[in-house]
Amino acid sequence: MMRMTMEQASGVTSLLEKLAGFGSTADGGVTRLLYSPSWKDAQSFLEAAMSAAGLETRYDRVGNLFGRLEGKRKEQGVILTGSHIDTVRSGGRYDGAYGIAASLAAVSFLRSTYGEPGRSIEVVSFCEEEGSRFPLAYWGSGNITGAYTTGMSPLIVDPQGITLEHAMQAAGFGREDQPESLREDLAAFVEVHIEQGVILERTGGKVGIVETIAGQRRYVITVKGETNHAGTTPMAMRRDAVAGAAEMIAILERAANRAGEPLVATVGRMKLLPNIPNVIAGTVEFTLDIRHISETLLTGFTDAVIGSFHSVAERRGLELDVQAALHARPAPMDPVLTGKLEKICSDGGIPYRRMMSGAGHDGQMFVNRCPTAMLFVPSKDGISHSPEEYTAAEDLALGVVVLAEMLYDLAYEEILT
Amino acid sequence: MMRMTMEQASGVTSLLEKLAGFGSTADGGVTRLLYSPSWKDAQSFLEAAMSAAGLETRYDRVGNLFGRLEGKRKEQGVILTGSHIDTVRSGGRYDGAYGIAASLAAVSFLRSTYGEPGRSIEVVSFCEEEGSRFPLAYWGSGNITGAYTTGMSPLIVDPQGITLEHAMQAAGFGREDQPESLREDLAAFVEVHIEQGVILERTGGKVGIVETIAGQRRYVITVKGETNHAGTTPMAMRRDAVAGAAEMIAILERAANRAGEPLVATVGRMKLLPNIPNVIAGTVEFTLDIRHISETLLTGFTDAVIGSFHSVAERRGLELDVQAALHARPAPMDPVLTGKLEKICSDGGIPYRRMMSGAGHDGQMFVNRCPTAMLFVPSKDGISHSPEEYTAAEDLALGVVVLAEMLYDLAYEEILT
Repeated sequence: MMRMTMEQASGVTSLLEKLAGFGSTADGGVTRLLYSPSWKDAQSFLEAAMSAAGLETRYDRVGNLFGRLEGKRKEQGVILTGSHIDTVRSGGRYDGAYGIAASLAAVSFLRSTYGEPGRSIEVVSFCEEEGSRFPLAYWGSGNITGAYTTGMSPLIVDPQGITLEHAMQAAGFGREDQPESLREDLAAFVEVHIEQGVILERTGGKVGIVETIAGQRRYVITVKGETNHAGTTPMAMRRDAVAGAAEMIAILERAANRAGEPLVATVGRMKLLPNIPNVIAGTVEFTLDIRHISETLLTGFTDAVIGSFHSVAERRGLELDVQAALHARPAPMDPVLTGKLEKICSDGGIPYRRMMSGAGHDGQMFVNRCPTAMLFVPSKDGISHSPEEYTAAEDLALGVVVLAEMLYDLAYEEILT
Repeated sequence: MMRMTMEQASGVTSLLEKLAGFGSTADGGVTRLLYSPSWKDAQSFLEAAMSAAGLETRYDRVGNLFGRLEGKRKEQGVILTGSHIDTVRSGGRYDGAYGIAASLAAVSFLRSTYGEPGRSIEVVSFCEEEGSRFPLAYWGSGNITGAYTTGMSPLIVDPQGITLEHAMQAAGFGREDQPESLREDLAAFVEVHIEQGVILERTGGKVGIVETIAGQRRYVITVKGETNHAGTTPMAMRRDAVAGAAEMIAILERAANRAGEPLVATVGRMKLLPNIPNVIAGTVEFTLDIRHISETLLTGFTDAVIGSFHSVAERRGLELDVQAALHARPAPMDPVLTGKLEKICSDGGIPYRRMMSGAGHDGQMFVNRCPTAMLFVPSKDGISHSPEEYTAAEDLALGVVVLAEMLYDLAYEEILT
């Protein structure tokens, strides 16, 4: 028997609907880029909702928003729970926002039902996770965990040429008199999120208990050949960057299929120069995204694939440039917290599944700072980063019920040592 | 021994330099889009230069400019010679412009040396060939030969939303009181052009005698799969449009290499949707450009390749859409005129080479209207449609010398039957 009923948890839906009003787009999606007006409005709305729920609100220097329920034993640290408020362009209503709404619903329930906890709980709305405005993700959780500092902000520029520092200041953050983001007082971090994949849906699971967030390597590969007239350059005299890139992409796909699950490899962005039908492209730039739960396998696979790319380039007389754009190590969740989540689901008769997360999440930033756990609810057709993103109301509520149970365990019953 | 000396022909260089001043760009290139102010200034400059050379000038309804040297026997028709005044964006100084300058230099020399010809000669500056403003090429020669009419002009729109009709009228053309473009009085068309390829340069040729302008098929291929998260979608559950397109491009290249010269096949433009590093692209659109001198082989090759594309799409669960964007049949030059050019080069001890043109040219519009010939001069490194386009002054002059010899043959000595 769970402490929170589905009825009590159902309020998460209306909170999510209200959040979707900030930055709503004509196509039914949501766009809330970091430090934009819609972003700021959404944070202000949450601030008010947190206050209304009896939580003490606070922004840190980069704009992370916290709602605190003070516990009896301050020295025992804080149970942090939440997710991110920013979205991709024309994204869905659930990615990030659900984790905040679920945390607020759960903590609000715990406060009104059980009062002051033994250990403090904070609901967090991370300012940024997606990397959809600036070429940097996890700006919120990265500042909390010390991976990033505001000192980097003058160097990072959005497509309009605005620095992260300037954008932050224009939104009212980044001032020295504002509280630093780095936290040393965290006892645990628990995040709820939509799966953004089809695995729960296809296997009938209602809750996914994340064991590991996959490691991710991202590269920007530039293939340089020679721009030439498509009509007057015989095949044998070409140094065609498109043909070279196509061969590389085919090699990547074959290697990924051979490596098997859970490895995934994707070329999602390509840019040709000059990109004209009757001109052989002299330059192709493409991104390479590779993920796996094992750092060793990830390294081996990536090295082999990039080695093959070099061979292709050499044989074709092309130049190859490989820039590492992201290197996130696999992030294993805390086994004790994961075991607690499993026991909650098991005792509650909830269909659950231990799984990996192929997507990156704020949770991965916390694994070296404090015990971290993460749970998923199903995503319809696995669709995410799209206006089509959808999770059924009962699935949303069930995630809140499980989270509330977990937070009760951590903040009311147990004292971590 | 040639009639015109290299010294006499060298004036072509200064004429070209003056032309390059109209529409010159900061990067050293030239941009003269159809009916733009720089285009109009260049035509006016040429009109004055034609008049100064003793030619009778005239614009037709679409803005083709003619400079006529009247012959004794009007019933014998007109020897037309010239090329196009428009350029691609940030193009070179030679593409098109050289053919006009060479024709004007040659005809000016013939008039001042030999006086009135037996048959009339006209130097032409075609208003448009490149298709760089409107999505239609050969607007000038197409109107002269009847392939196009001004009736099409309201339907054709530039990227700014301006119709071809409106642009033409704004430049002072397209009026009913202006002479119609269609010509029924042509006895021959001779065009000189830069090669825009490396074949003359690599084989030591100074003059290329075109036997055939290759036929060209252009398609826009759309591959549709499913947009999905790059981290959460296992390889086996993907319908990745990029992977499918890469396989198609690899098949195309292999097939083209197997088919051998002179077939060329190019994918020069690609567009991914949504084109984001961590998202599997649901849609890829790419262009396919295939050229060969044989219509039969072109058809066979194209059908086979597109058939393979369909197989790839079917196996991968992708949708394939194939839109034909261009179908230009191979254009064989007149064998008698080609033979004359060969005899001129051979007798003059000029290193020449019979070759095909992989690029399209105004000449191909004339092949069904009148005997047509085309000759090339070398292009440094084969570079064209670029500020780097370059042909040495002596190569430019030699082209003029050969053209003058040819025009003398056609207009002063011979009467075609």
